[in-house]
Amino acid sequence: MTSSRLLGSLATTEELADLFSDGSVLAAFLRFESALARAQARLGLIPASAADAISRAAAGEAFDAGAIASEARASATMAIPLVNALSARLAAANDAAGGFVHWGATSQDAIDTAMSLLLDRARTIVGRDHARLERSLRGLSDRHAATVMLGRTLLQPAPPITFGYKVAGWYGEVHRSWRRLCASFGGAVTLQFGGAAGTLAAYGHRGTALAAELAKELNLPVADAPWQAHRDRLAALVADCGIYTSALGKIARDVSLLMQPEVGEVAEAGGGSSAMPNKRNPAGSVLALAAATRMPGLVAAFLAGMVQEHERAAGGWQAECPTVAAVIETTGSALAAIAESIDGLTVYPERMRANLNTTHGVIFAEKARMLVQPALGREATQRLLAEAAREALESAQPFREVLRGKREIASLLTAEQMDAIDRPEDYLGAAEEFRRKLLED
Amino acid sequence: MTSSRLLGSLATTEELADLFSDGSVLAAFLRFESALARAQARLGLIPASAADAISRAAAGEAFDAGAIASEARASATMAIPLVNALSARLAAANDAAGGFVHWGATSQDAIDTAMSLLLDRARTIVGRDHARLERSLRGLSDRHAATVMLGRTLLQPAPPITFGYKVAGWYGEVHRSWRRLCASFGGAVTLQFGGAAGTLAAYGHRGTALAAELAKELNLPVADAPWQAHRDRLAALVADCGIYTSALGKIARDVSLLMQPEVGEVAEAGGGSSAMPNKRNPAGSVLALAAATRMPGLVAAFLAGMVQEHERAAGGWQAECPTVAAVIETTGSALAAIAESIDGLTVYPERMRANLNTTHGVIFAEKARMLVQPALGREATQRLLAEAAREALESAQPFREVLRGKREIASLLTAEQMDAIDRPEDYLGAAEEFRRKLLED
Amino acid sequence: MTSSRLLGSLATTEELADLFSDGSVLAAFLRFESALARAQARLGLIPASAADAISRAAAGEAFDAGAIASEARASATMAIPLVNALSARLAAANDAAGGFVHWGATSQDAIDTAMSLLLDRARTIVGRDHARLERSLRGLSDRHAATVMLGRTLLQPAPPITFGYKVAGWYGEVHRSWRRLCASFGGAVTLQFGGAAGTLAAYGHRGTALAAELAKELNLPVADAPWQAHRDRLAALVADCGIYTSALGKIARDVSLLMQPEVGEVAEAGGGSSAMPNKRNPAGSVLALAAATRMPGLVAAFLAGMVQEHERAAGGWQAECPTVAAVIETTGSALAAIAESIDGLTVYPERMRANLNTTHGVIFAEKARMLVQPALGREATQRLLAEAAREALESAQPFREVLRGKREIASLLTAEQMDAIDRPEDYLGAAEEFRRKLLED
Amino acid sequence: MTSSRLLGSLATTEELADLFSDGSVLAAFLRFESALARAQARLGLIPASAADAISRAAAGEAFDAGAIASEARASATMAIPLVNALSARLAAANDAAGGFVHWGATSQDAIDTAMSLLLDRARTIVGRDHARLERSLRGLSDRHAATVMLGRTLLQPAPPITFGYKVAGWYGEVHRSWRRLCASFGGAVTLQFGGAAGTLAAYGHRGTALAAELAKELNLPVADAPWQAHRDRLAALVADCGIYTSALGKIARDVSLLMQPEVGEVAEAGGGSSAMPNKRNPAGSVLALAAATRMPGLVAAFLAGMVQEHERAAGGWQAECPTVAAVIETTGSALAAIAESIDGLTVYPERMRANLNTTHGVIFAEKARMLVQPALGREATQRLLAEAAREALESAQPFREVLRGKREIASLLTAEQMDAIDRPEDYLGAAEEFRRKLLED
Repeated sequence: MTSSRLLGSLATTEELADLFSDGSVLAAFLRFESALARAQARLGLIPASAADAISRAAAGEAFDAGAIASEARASATMAIPLVNALSARLAAANDAAGGFVHWGATSQDAIDTAMSLLLDRARTIVGRDHARLERSLRGLSDRHAATVMLGRTLLQPAPPITFGYKVAGWYGEVHRSWRRLCASFGGAVTLQFGGAAGTLAAYGHRGTALAAELAKELNLPVADAPWQAHRDRLAALVADCGIYTSALGKIARDVSLLMQPEVGEVAEAGGGSSAMPNKRNPAGSVLALAAATRMPGLVAAFLAGMVQEHERAAGGWQAECPTVAAVIETTGSALAAIAESIDGLTVYPERMRANLNTTHGVIFAEKARMLVQPALGREATQRLLAEAAREALESAQPFREVLRGKREIASLLTAEQMDAIDRPEDYLGAAEEFRRKLLED
Repeated sequence: MTSSRLLGSLATTEELADLFSDGSVLAAFLRFESALARAQARLGLIPASAADAISRAAAGEAFDAGAIASEARASATMAIPLVNALSARLAAANDAAGGFVHWGATSQDAIDTAMSLLLDRARTIVGRDHARLERSLRGLSDRHAATVMLGRTLLQPAPPITFGYKVAGWYGEVHRSWRRLCASFGGAVTLQFGGAAGTLAAYGHRGTALAAELAKELNLPVADAPWQAHRDRLAALVADCGIYTSALGKIARDVSLLMQPEVGEVAEAGGGSSAMPNKRNPAGSVLALAAATRMPGLVAAFLAGMVQEHERAAGGWQAECPTVAAVIETTGSALAAIAESIDGLTVYPERMRANLNTTHGVIFAEKARMLVQPALGREATQRLLAEAAREALESAQPFREVLRGKREIASLLTAEQMDAIDRPEDYLGAAEEFRRKLLED
Repeated sequence: MTSSRLLGSLATTEELADLFSDGSVLAAFLRFESALARAQARLGLIPASAADAISRAAAGEAFDAGAIASEARASATMAIPLVNALSARLAAANDAAGGFVHWGATSQDAIDTAMSLLLDRARTIVGRDHARLERSLRGLSDRHAATVMLGRTLLQPAPPITFGYKVAGWYGEVHRSWRRLCASFGGAVTLQFGGAAGTLAAYGHRGTALAAELAKELNLPVADAPWQAHRDRLAALVADCGIYTSALGKIARDVSLLMQPEVGEVAEAGGGSSAMPNKRNPAGSVLALAAATRMPGLVAAFLAGMVQEHERAAGGWQAECPTVAAVIETTGSALAAIAESIDGLTVYPERMRANLNTTHGVIFAEKARMLVQPALGREATQRLLAEAAREALESAQPFREVLRGKREIASLLTAEQMDAIDRPEDYLGAAEEFRRKLLED
Repeated sequence: MTSSRLLGSLATTEELADLFSDGSVLAAFLRFESALARAQARLGLIPASAADAISRAAAGEAFDAGAIASEARASATMAIPLVNALSARLAAANDAAGGFVHWGATSQDAIDTAMSLLLDRARTIVGRDHARLERSLRGLSDRHAATVMLGRTLLQPAPPITFGYKVAGWYGEVHRSWRRLCASFGGAVTLQFGGAAGTLAAYGHRGTALAAELAKELNLPVADAPWQAHRDRLAALVADCGIYTSALGKIARDVSLLMQPEVGEVAEAGGGSSAMPNKRNPAGSVLALAAATRMPGLVAAFLAGMVQEHERAAGGWQAECPTVAAVIETTGSALAAIAESIDGLTVYPERMRANLNTTHGVIFAEKARMLVQPALGREATQRLLAEAAREALESAQPFREVLRGKREIASLLTAEQMDAIDRPEDYLGAAEEFRRKLLED
């Protein structure tokens, strides 16, 4: 995450940049502090009037985020200047409630819980775009269930598939990755509340009761115990964002390759170029590929901080915040871009057919092999088919016709088999069956 | 993964090094080929005699792994030289069955499925050590439910916890991470079978029936569709290994810190040093920390390959194998090391108590603050307690006695409160409650 | 427009956050556009009046960074909305010069060169803090050239070193890493100017002349050719930032470990804690460790984008900006923190001596071994010294006295050798020689 | 003993796999031990007869690498079982020299120096392939200095370049990256010799003299001080391998894209496919892309270990070995693959011309714009050229002819300008100038 909207403009969306902006972070932090005060008042731990005063102060006009950010370095936590600023505001109003700000809590309680509140909203934002993408992919796959195209392996032609099956493959991976990501959100969005050493000792025997009350106030679940130095739940969220974004990156890679004019099988609605007014760039795919490029390193950056010391880490925890925000923003950026790309995608079935035909049918060599090898043996079959493929490509003749001219092979096939040998519709195997299973859910 | 047992000796276990050794990889590959032949014979796709011959050849004496590895580079897949070697063996015996080797399958079917078979065994190996570790951690936590020690945050003293609670925190993270890892193993250990373009077209309408038969033969589940270019399931396994290993690394970090002689609160059975016969090194923790150091990068290396082209990637897929093996071996290495470390751990409760006492009680400043601040206000409280803490540390007097001498404070506490102010047993909050919840499962 | 100084507050400095802030990025971009116009006017490629008008418009009041950031996504580059905004400003003034904005240039020319301009300033900022740190480390090392302390390996005691030597080791690594980083800055801070396809064809045969003029205008060197899709120079800068920050992280790890109260050999001036007024946290080390935690992943994120397509990448290039900014900011954050930490460091030589003494001299077992093993043989020596070490530790007697009681050993040492066996000053080997060489430069 | 050549077959070369094989690692380790003994004998630190005996034992038949690897875990270093095995061999021969094995040295001295010896040989192996690749790239660039082809940005057509310039760009990046890598080899290949705590105290005042003698014996340079916990030199080597491999990956990405049959501009000699005898896969590019995929994570894995504790790390150092070997092997694998790919590359200039023509000349819109915009203004120009481009593409007419029909535009161009508007040779700008500079060195 950079401190700049411009430099990060391709790595976030407006909505997510807002979510992690200073105003929003401040609000989440203050929401924690005022919920804590209200929950404590309800249990009689602090006077109700103090809770009211704290809530009012926390709801007041903005604090100076820049000043707080600068002061944060001195104590290695932004919680201290934040709490000081809130207390100072009350003190300035001569309100003794200042003494009850952050009462018995620790920095990490406020920061981790504020992050949970932000992640909770991120889930909603991302979930909305995901739902849209799933719908679009299902529709696209259904419309092209019978659109035949080249399969491609190692960037070389392979036997045919349908575009509908290809899209269903995209859908499947995105769908599974989203399911995992949802589960991770469920685990990670949770109250952190442990006090100075994770025991809530400052509240005597009322600690867990207060935690429950606070969680209710914030509408967050409570974990079995504070997780100050145990970051697996957040790590799972980060890793699952990484996998999800990679799944989007795979779509982007395919779309950008299919959109090369030499291939020309699909086109994004596209972004322009300043130099060439005619140019249509795969802007959506580019954004998603940029996101997928950055994610593995961001995931590594988070995991590297998990080996935390004792009850609160000296470095590993303090490294997390910018990474988590960058991970969520990058995920959301890729998702918004791909959702847009898929929604605006033009498909050219005739170009798909034409590219298939350009192979002259040599991609059906495997089919011929399955038919004749039992009779001819492995070696002869390989030799004859390689020969035939070469002839077809060199003479620009259909592979079928070349085969017809090879007595050893032709004699083994019925006329019907020979006629159909390069009919892509007859060589789709279980493509449609797989497509349906992938969309089934 | 390196090609050497010595250089990798600290990054694997004997069992896992064997699992990914050439013999074992060859066996898994050949198991795929012979299962495929048997399944095909059962469906009448190839003669039963061919299946028998293939199975016999595959079960025969070892192939030349070194030669196969060298040839693999020419085609960017080890499957081609492997299939050739198996066919050649049958051809040498003048057996026409050679033509039915790998019948209609593609390289990736064999390699991905062979990896699934290896991962299935890895799950058992790792699962056994994990069960042992869980048992040991539960026992250790129970035995030290009442062993009081310093909490430590940012490597500085904080209010007390129990060693049992600390261990329960380790248990909780390892336990949750294992549950996720188990689910990922369940997703990743699955048949890959799609043929040249992922449609199984070579088998006409029999593709999915054959897949089912083959899966039965190999005792593997079938996914909804081939996953040639969709690697999210493997990615989840890799990422969850990363999280699990980091959880082990956290234990290792804590143990190695507690085992510093200046702290001296626990000791591993320990490894020796060539130079100093008296030395007892935290060898188990060191192995686990080494593993945790390498894992984030390995996870990133896998994720980076997920953006795969079309129906089979040009690079991303081919990058996977050594990473997956390294990830599993590194996980297993960390686990074996920590299981050993915990089983052999000596705990020194008296040293824990002594280190706590060395703080002269200033770690209870928070407790004092909770008691007096409502009356004194925030500022006065902070000032007085800071003063008292400084005096206690400088004069090596108990914080309690210094407080007793401060009228403003002493006047606010009952005698009982004052006497108990630095009694760690009285300031453990919900430690035991949390400990139990963490162990509950 | 949003900003996120708060979440990144521990991962940057105020100065570097400003450097990569929207205002500063905009200014660098506009500086490129106006320098381009001036250089073109000088070569007669555009009218001088157009260049003047463009320079005036570019120097005018701020553009709407938020709007530009949002529009950037549509074309996958922020250059298009920026150029449009600048053109529109001129058009609004009815100035035909708008047509000459960005004349013949491409998005990447502007963005890469703007980044070079920012990096040039970053070098100055970081260089200043580095010089300060070098000075401080040299001074600290010199002052403690004779301060004896425990060597520590695997977090266990080893033979003695001097604190001065330890600090010189820190200095050496930081110094070497900085030299590499300087060289990388030199390579990376360079003009990018290639036009649409890297040939400068839009300028006919005047391309390289214009490049030279533009470079002069911006006070930047010109590379041998445009480097649109060849990012090795930037990659070297990023990697060398990673190494430099890791070198700072090593200092931070050592300082934070030495500052544990149980060790107590140094103390940072320190950051406070909200809960415990007495607490002195290693805030500087924590910031540097947080930086070092994030860097390997950030470096990986950059390297992952280097495999760029043809003449301008579809994803890899677009991924760079936020990573480069984060890398520089993180480096600067670690550096500022460690410079502060070292400047404020209190050293406790008496505590170093005390910790050394607590080993009862068993760390000199190696010294004894060197003296007696030639006579006693390997096995007997190991056995006897292990025994002696155990006795010393168990009885809390000096190792020296225990040895004196072992006839086989005592008989082999002169009285002087025996008396000096555990004198740390006599077992420092080449520590001072190494220290001086490390500081030599 | 196990080995895993198969799973790593695409990630190494035979030569490098041999270099890091157990036999080679053992030999390097034993070379250190016997050189140490000889150097010590020469200085009179041990008897000459002991040095002879150690050298003989070290040169004897192989040790059991598998057993040593297994034992290594107990002490977290393979040096201890290795030294024990060597001592035991001498003890078995009743030779007292066993006591002088590894005399005064520490594990890390032996392991780091053995790695230096291996890296020294790696430099030679890799250097040879690099020289071959440089030669091939220069030749290829020269032969195609005038071969015109499409520039491509974001995988879309851009103004023309020459294939010779494209290849020179590859050359330039590989060449610069190699120069950096050479410097890093020079820094990293160096003796490590510090003894237990990095002071060489065991040798009294003879430490540095012995280091010099040992270095001479091993033909390695000596650093200014031991670098046990300061790993920047190795880190630079690892990072520069990462950059170099990424530069190779960029070539591979371009080649694999140009080799798509729909593009068809180059072809590798190519690897086959088991299923399709006609198929020609970009096997070399695939291997290099696989390498480039893994490298960023491997670099991160190394950097993550640099934050090392005190005088020898507890985890960070022990994590290095397998990463360093994997990095070197992966680099060598990519290099060998690309050297092969380039040497066997067929170039199809006519296909390059044809693909260029397929754009109907709209890629020259920029050229037209430069000519007419000064007269027509920005907006009118953009509108007219966009219109013309659309017409050309829709009607499959030359852009030139469409422009000729647009009076506003045609009236501004001379007949000659109009005729040449889409002549690629006339729109290459400084391509040849840049090409030469890149090859100049």
